[in-house]
Amino acid sequence: MQGYKAPQKDALFVMNELLGFDKHYADLGFEDASPDMVEAIFSEAAKFTENVLAPINASGDEEGCVWKDGVVTTPTGFKEAYQQYVDGGWPSMTHPEEFGGQALPYSLGTIMAEWFSGANHSWAMYPGLSHGCMETIKAHGTAELKTQFLPNLVSGLWTGTMCLTEAHCGSDLGMLKTKAVPNADGSYNLTGTKIFISAGEHDLSDNIVHIVIARLPDAPAGTKGISLFVVPKFHAGPNGEKLERNAVSCGSIEHKMGIKASATCVINFDGAKGYLIGTENRGLNCMFTFMNMARVGTSLEGLAATEAAFQGALVYAKDRLQFRSVSGVKNPSGPADPIINHPDVRRMLLTQKAFREGKRAMAMYCMQLVDYGLYAQNEQNKKITEGKLALLTPILKAFLTETAQETTSYGMQVFGGHGYIKEWGMEQLARDTRICTMYEGTTGIQAIDLLARKVAGSNGELLKLFIQEIKEYCLSIRDKSQFNAWSNTINKHCDEWAQITGDILQRAATNPEELGAASVDYLMYSGYVTVGYFWLKMAVVAQEKLDAGDFSQTVGGDKDFYQAKLLTAKFYFDRLLTRTRSLVSAMESGAENLMDMPEELFYLG
Amino acid sequence: MQGYKAPQKDALFVMNELLGFDKHYADLGFEDASPDMVEAIFSEAAKFTENVLAPINASGDEEGCVWKDGVVTTPTGFKEAYQQYVDGGWPSMTHPEEFGGQALPYSLGTIMAEWFSGANHSWAMYPGLSHGCMETIKAHGTAELKTQFLPNLVSGLWTGTMCLTEAHCGSDLGMLKTKAVPNADGSYNLTGTKIFISAGEHDLSDNIVHIVIARLPDAPAGTKGISLFVVPKFHAGPNGEKLERNAVSCGSIEHKMGIKASATCVINFDGAKGYLIGTENRGLNCMFTFMNMARVGTSLEGLAATEAAFQGALVYAKDRLQFRSVSGVKNPSGPADPIINHPDVRRMLLTQKAFREGKRAMAMYCMQLVDYGLYAQNEQNKKITEGKLALLTPILKAFLTETAQETTSYGMQVFGGHGYIKEWGMEQLARDTRICTMYEGTTGIQAIDLLARKVAGSNGELLKLFIQEIKEYCLSIRDKSQFNAWSNTINKHCDEWAQITGDILQRAATNPEELGAASVDYLMYSGYVTVGYFWLKMAVVAQEKLDAGDFSQTVGGDKDFYQAKLLTAKFYFDRLLTRTRSLVSAMESGAENLMDMPEELFYLG
Repeated sequence: MQGYKAPQKDALFVMNELLGFDKHYADLGFEDASPDMVEAIFSEAAKFTENVLAPINASGDEEGCVWKDGVVTTPTGFKEAYQQYVDGGWPSMTHPEEFGGQALPYSLGTIMAEWFSGANHSWAMYPGLSHGCMETIKAHGTAELKTQFLPNLVSGLWTGTMCLTEAHCGSDLGMLKTKAVPNADGSYNLTGTKIFISAGEHDLSDNIVHIVIARLPDAPAGTKGISLFVVPKFHAGPNGEKLERNAVSCGSIEHKMGIKASATCVINFDGAKGYLIGTENRGLNCMFTFMNMARVGTSLEGLAATEAAFQGALVYAKDRLQFRSVSGVKNPSGPADPIINHPDVRRMLLTQKAFREGKRAMAMYCMQLVDYGLYAQNEQNKKITEGKLALLTPILKAFLTETAQETTSYGMQVFGGHGYIKEWGMEQLARDTRICTMYEGTTGIQAIDLLARKVAGSNGELLKLFIQEIKEYCLSIRDKSQFNAWSNTINKHCDEWAQITGDILQRAATNPEELGAASVDYLMYSGYVTVGYFWLKMAVVAQEKLDAGDFSQTVGGDKDFYQAKLLTAKFYFDRLLTRTRSLVSAMESGAENLMDMPEELFYLG
Repeated sequence: MQGYKAPQKDALFVMNELLGFDKHYADLGFEDASPDMVEAIFSEAAKFTENVLAPINASGDEEGCVWKDGVVTTPTGFKEAYQQYVDGGWPSMTHPEEFGGQALPYSLGTIMAEWFSGANHSWAMYPGLSHGCMETIKAHGTAELKTQFLPNLVSGLWTGTMCLTEAHCGSDLGMLKTKAVPNADGSYNLTGTKIFISAGEHDLSDNIVHIVIARLPDAPAGTKGISLFVVPKFHAGPNGEKLERNAVSCGSIEHKMGIKASATCVINFDGAKGYLIGTENRGLNCMFTFMNMARVGTSLEGLAATEAAFQGALVYAKDRLQFRSVSGVKNPSGPADPIINHPDVRRMLLTQKAFREGKRAMAMYCMQLVDYGLYAQNEQNKKITEGKLALLTPILKAFLTETAQETTSYGMQVFGGHGYIKEWGMEQLARDTRICTMYEGTTGIQAIDLLARKVAGSNGELLKLFIQEIKEYCLSIRDKSQFNAWSNTINKHCDEWAQITGDILQRAATNPEELGAASVDYLMYSGYVTVGYFWLKMAVVAQEKLDAGDFSQTVGGDKDFYQAKLLTAKFYFDRLLTRTRSLVSAMESGAENLMDMPEELFYLG
């Protein structure tokens, strides 16, 4: 099995040469986050992921978590790795100084979150869930709750979770049954059972802070009657002292296809004491803080899996000898040529490479939008960036995770039969990343969020904002004649995107099923165009570096890096962006081919 | 977890109403295989798969096979199920009476092989491998070998394997190293190590008969120096008496993503005695008998997984309540509507259904071609059917297994997070079927077989044969005006298929990499068009039944069955056949976008 290598160079290329993160950070007042500082942090993070997390990835999968009498034991090495993570100060990096944080920008943490997940998806979920918990308390909690819980969460001494799902309600949270009964002291007693709670119980931290949605006795039905609570495993004193055990327990853990070292828990609340976050019955609004961050986090897991699968496949493809190349012997001293010389192996590797880099650019662009929302003072710009982020979040989540299914599958396929064998590590990547299109809102849910809530809900305005950005960029490079073809292609896709959107909305005016019928194809279309836009930008930057001729000051460091970007861009435009052709056909076919079949005609013959 | 239900009705529809199997069998002299007889056999096979194989599928995955000191133990119940299979006379069904068989047509066995695999992929591999072994001995073995081995294989007392792969040679068999040294008595001593040998060692049968490729001491290099041998685990007397142990042993078994109850063995030959099949150095030709049958068998595993995933997802989609339908409440007495009412869930179910039925039609059509090759006397027709089978075998193998990746993934996706949990059984289907695009020749190997060997190798003649059949069919239904649109679509695809083929061959004349660069997209294109042809035919038959108005004598038995076929055909034409649009773009983009990147530009940045 190959080790994991943190993609520092590619991340720095996107930050420094594509998206101007130095200016971005300076504009937002993060003078500390200079390129040198970032590079130093990256270098430490790389060591941690490569030397601490990657070596316990396969063994963690093999061992899995063990539940016994309500206690969950994580696999060998997980606790020690978590302690190193805490000792290294990683949990506190992007949190405010008042709670013990290092006050670095949010985006910096998420960029490295990709690496944690790439080295060890299961392990990375424990700290990953904590961040959402902290953001929710930070954004919506009272001063008392912040003092009680944030310092220990920020330091990593405690971890957090998000408790939404119940057995009968997954996507449809309006059906939740967990009850919260008010106490005289202002607290609430929660009773109910939550399922699929990642990091719900484990042995990594001293205490676990659950963010729970529940329903008050007199709450209105549906999503308008959902309230949000903090429910700790152990009660906390006013300054975060760990007190007695709360009535929260782990009933069992799930046996899953993958992420076996991540404890997926049934959590029972038996009159457990909790504290309201935000306003009664308005919990879902607060929850969106958590959910949007979790969706961005999940998208990075998709990117991470693509990165890791590419790494494994690439090394194998250069090493494995089978057949001679049809265009002439490439390895005369060996019995056959490395399989990287065969065109179909290259097709798979280039698909991985084009997604790996294109998705990273898109993700980091979105991180900048998140930063802006969190830190910027300029209200006008903020409205624009928030609009773009609202549009792009479901695309990012679903597109980055759906394409990870393909890229991890290719990871196995390049290995042939060996890809199916555990020892190579490729099949674990495919199993682990399979959850990503299902949790934190399935692809279908993201697609409806995109097309119904974001696009139709803004009457197309959010889409217009983003298309305008793309078109302005295309206009700005009109003098670079070598890019005219790709630029025109992206421009035409923008026009088509707008036109298809109009068509669907028009059809939906008379048949509301048209939105759902087109939604997933629409989301994937949007993803291909968005990543195409970033490939165009990357190609332009790469050409500028090549034209300048001096690579000593560049991130790439040599001609090959930029040459490879240009050739990968060509592959993307020729062979991946063209997938929009079939998506358009499917979207234009309308809802009848889905909805005309009466339910009773669906049966097993 | 839902049980498995053998798709008897759909299989009978394809046999009796679509492809005229009654006449087909009668023409080939199988008077015994009357529709009534077939139905009776199917009913018994359904009971066996539903009541014996399906119940030990999940437990078999959980337990896996155990290797200890060279002995492999299969999971609980596997041995007993195999004994029931033998007692039921299933192994002998399609083999000649002279070896104890029941002399029923080959196709009848393979149709049910789908069900065995659908109920329990791992279990079905043990008898599955035996058939290839028997066919090889039958086709190429001496009279002595047949007497020694066939009766016990036919009865199921013994099982067989196929030993090709070695650690350093998978697809590229020319590199194999296993040595065969001739003995004075006409036998050979084989020495070497084979890997990935399914059913290579287990506890189901008394003896295991290995078909092994090896190289004679003076053999020419490459594939022209490969010879084929029978190497039994226990030696056999002249009439199949089980004698002393041969120097064949199982060194270990692989730990895999799926098919965990199927023993994937390292087999060591330490001077093991073997017997030549066919001519020295011409083993690969004989091996193709085995490989082509194995490829057809693997295609059925892809179909089987699609069927099983559809069954699971359909039951769940009718049962699971989440959200209200946007076009009006469908389940007023419940808290929400069954998710089958949501358009994107229908998109996934209809994709499964359209592939399930379309792939079955294509597979059974190919079974008829196999029958023809085995049994027909008419040499002229035989040449045509063999040509079509040669063309369609790689398409069948790769298309049916590649689309099974999508359909089993949808099986999980319809369940949301529950799809990832072992107890529902959906994730096992995805893991088990993942091997199918890799073993028995990867999709890339099938694609090169199709485009280089079959299409280019016949100068397009084989493709022309099949296109002619499709076009003649389209012409024959020109008076059915309601089908003109679909018929024209298929016709146009045939023209496009021919044109693209010409384009690729022309480009390949100057750059041989063009074949590999287009090959997988070409194969998938061919699959979509071929299945489209069968959907057109199914729709026409369904309409004829609807027009006739009396369903009492039909396989479907009611209007719904045929109505569902028509609506599923519409879905296929609108949303699946249209995937050819992107495939065409990719094929037309040429080889440069794959081959222009120098190998050294592929590196981790």
